[in-house]
Amino acid sequence: MEFKTIEWKGDYIRILDQRRLPEEIRYLHCKTLSSVIHAIRSMAIRGAPALGVAASMGIALAAQKIKSNRPEEFRKEMKEVCIRMEQTRPTAKNLFWAIQRMNKILTLIDRYGVEQTRRRLVEEALKIEREDVEVNRRIGEHGKRLIKDGDGILTHCNAGALATAGYGTALGVIYAAWNDGKKFQVYVDETRPLLQGGRLTAWELIQEKIPVAVITDNMAGVLMAQGKISLVIVGADRIARNGDSANKIGTYSLAVLSRWHRIPFYIAAPISTIDLNCKSGKEIPIEERPRKEITHMAGKRIMPPKVMVWNPGFDVTPHTLIDGIITEEGILRRPFRNSLRRMKVE
Amino acid sequence: MEFKTIEWKGDYIRILDQRRLPEEIRYLHCKTLSSVIHAIRSMAIRGAPALGVAASMGIALAAQKIKSNRPEEFRKEMKEVCIRMEQTRPTAKNLFWAIQRMNKILTLIDRYGVEQTRRRLVEEALKIEREDVEVNRRIGEHGKRLIKDGDGILTHCNAGALATAGYGTALGVIYAAWNDGKKFQVYVDETRPLLQGGRLTAWELIQEKIPVAVITDNMAGVLMAQGKISLVIVGADRIARNGDSANKIGTYSLAVLSRWHRIPFYIAAPISTIDLNCKSGKEIPIEERPRKEITHMAGKRIMPPKVMVWNPGFDVTPHTLIDGIITEEGILRRPFRNSLRRMKVE
Repeated sequence: MEFKTIEWKGDYIRILDQRRLPEEIRYLHCKTLSSVIHAIRSMAIRGAPALGVAASMGIALAAQKIKSNRPEEFRKEMKEVCIRMEQTRPTAKNLFWAIQRMNKILTLIDRYGVEQTRRRLVEEALKIEREDVEVNRRIGEHGKRLIKDGDGILTHCNAGALATAGYGTALGVIYAAWNDGKKFQVYVDETRPLLQGGRLTAWELIQEKIPVAVITDNMAGVLMAQGKISLVIVGADRIARNGDSANKIGTYSLAVLSRWHRIPFYIAAPISTIDLNCKSGKEIPIEERPRKEITHMAGKRIMPPKVMVWNPGFDVTPHTLIDGIITEEGILRRPFRNSLRRMKVE
Repeated sequence: MEFKTIEWKGDYIRILDQRRLPEEIRYLHCKTLSSVIHAIRSMAIRGAPALGVAASMGIALAAQKIKSNRPEEFRKEMKEVCIRMEQTRPTAKNLFWAIQRMNKILTLIDRYGVEQTRRRLVEEALKIEREDVEVNRRIGEHGKRLIKDGDGILTHCNAGALATAGYGTALGVIYAAWNDGKKFQVYVDETRPLLQGGRLTAWELIQEKIPVAVITDNMAGVLMAQGKISLVIVGADRIARNGDSANKIGTYSLAVLSRWHRIPFYIAAPISTIDLNCKSGKEIPIEERPRKEITHMAGKRIMPPKVMVWNPGFDVTPHTLIDGIITEEGILRRPFRNSLRRMKVE
């Protein structure tokens, strides 16, 4: 990869501004907690694993900026920081998982003191980043065997290097198979409203010289009917204990269409996306995004003023429509609960 | 309706430029055959029934401009005109059906002479326009009984007054039910790439004060899963003898999703959309539209340069997924072939 989604720079975090891709490669230099929070909310950085990294780096950055060296004060201020970070976006489990890891470091402040805790928070954030790339590579290794020469692979949104600290989940599987010399064609839904498929996934794959064609979201069905798709792989933002998976809006439709056309449908995601506290998809909070994302495009209004719109960022695909969940520990199969137990995740 | 999609003005045709809606209400004054052809190709006017009206008016306009009063020469030039009109867009049956009606007038030139044929061509075009509105109203009357109080009705693209000489097919059904005092909520897919749902259907329904919410195409599935949709009605561009129906890209996905969720799926279209020469959907020509419609939005490039895209304007929904075809003669039911025979269409 020629780019880095997010990078720790000591006194600031450098974030590739994904809202401007592919037209412009511009980096944000986030020097404050507020600027990191804004980058997350505005989706300059997005994708569940990348949000985990951004949240932990944001917390580590905030810790450097707190002046007090008194444990009580530091702890109190950091608690505020974590709460603010939790309130950025509700759906991606990895964000909360990363905050939890940072919180664990904070609980040991009495043992290590403020100065060392600051350092330890940075180390933890960098560890989360390193682990993410490693986990993605392992997802790729487990998943690549699902891909055959000549396949037509459909993906949705962006579950690539841009959605993670590097490499990607669903695209990680594709990269691993491609690096093994397999030849195939990738199709990607443009993914309205923010077009992460047409803008980000197409951009990533073109850079890796992997054949990719962009379709509008409403073309997936007829592409399947024409026999052009042999496999669907997408990412996930939160996976319930029973395997129900929240992912970018439109994933559910794709899963139904896949089942109708008897095409295998896979999720690729790290274990950190699994939320054992969610019994089923019904308990996954779904973010409602601003209406302007739909009514405007490239800064211009494209729909009648005051028109009613509905803009959930995600939908939930029931586990019954998912053939497997590709994780760093292997491919989970239905019933996912048993599969999770066998892998000792639960 | 406060607007007129297309209007014969004697020495020009006034066409509401639908590419600019809803931002701007601008009319094109088409004074030549070429300008009518350009309006059709560029989709300033679109929708199968409206294309029939535009084609016939365009031919009538061209006939006024031909200077020669010698039948042989007039006939020869008009033959060219009809061929050019046939080559504008390939899928909508109504366009070819209207040209055929104009051609029939032309065959009688030896009986009526050039001057009277010119007049008769204008009369025929105006008759096609009048009949279209009348046919739409009858479609509405037949279809309205499918709608119940409290329904959530999903439609796709624009099959409204803008897609016809007035009133509309799928929206005609909705208007008729609304005028009967029924209360319901309409949902419309924005319909990428050209957003006829978000721009045109929403605009039409807002003017009639009918509750409408715009969704992105990829939200239809989850809306159905949540029980918000009780009925789907869309238009058609060409219907084969067995009931297979070509309509705006994305219709096929909707039909599969409707069947999966056990939601009735209806087509609303005039008999002139039925092509008895097409045995099945396989024989319907599908237009491939310019790639720029997908890669650009509001004049700005939104995808990587040179990215591969696929842009079929239509897809075919197999008759097995269609619960009924609402026509001016009544609702056709499966097997559609028998239904057509009973209605003496075949």
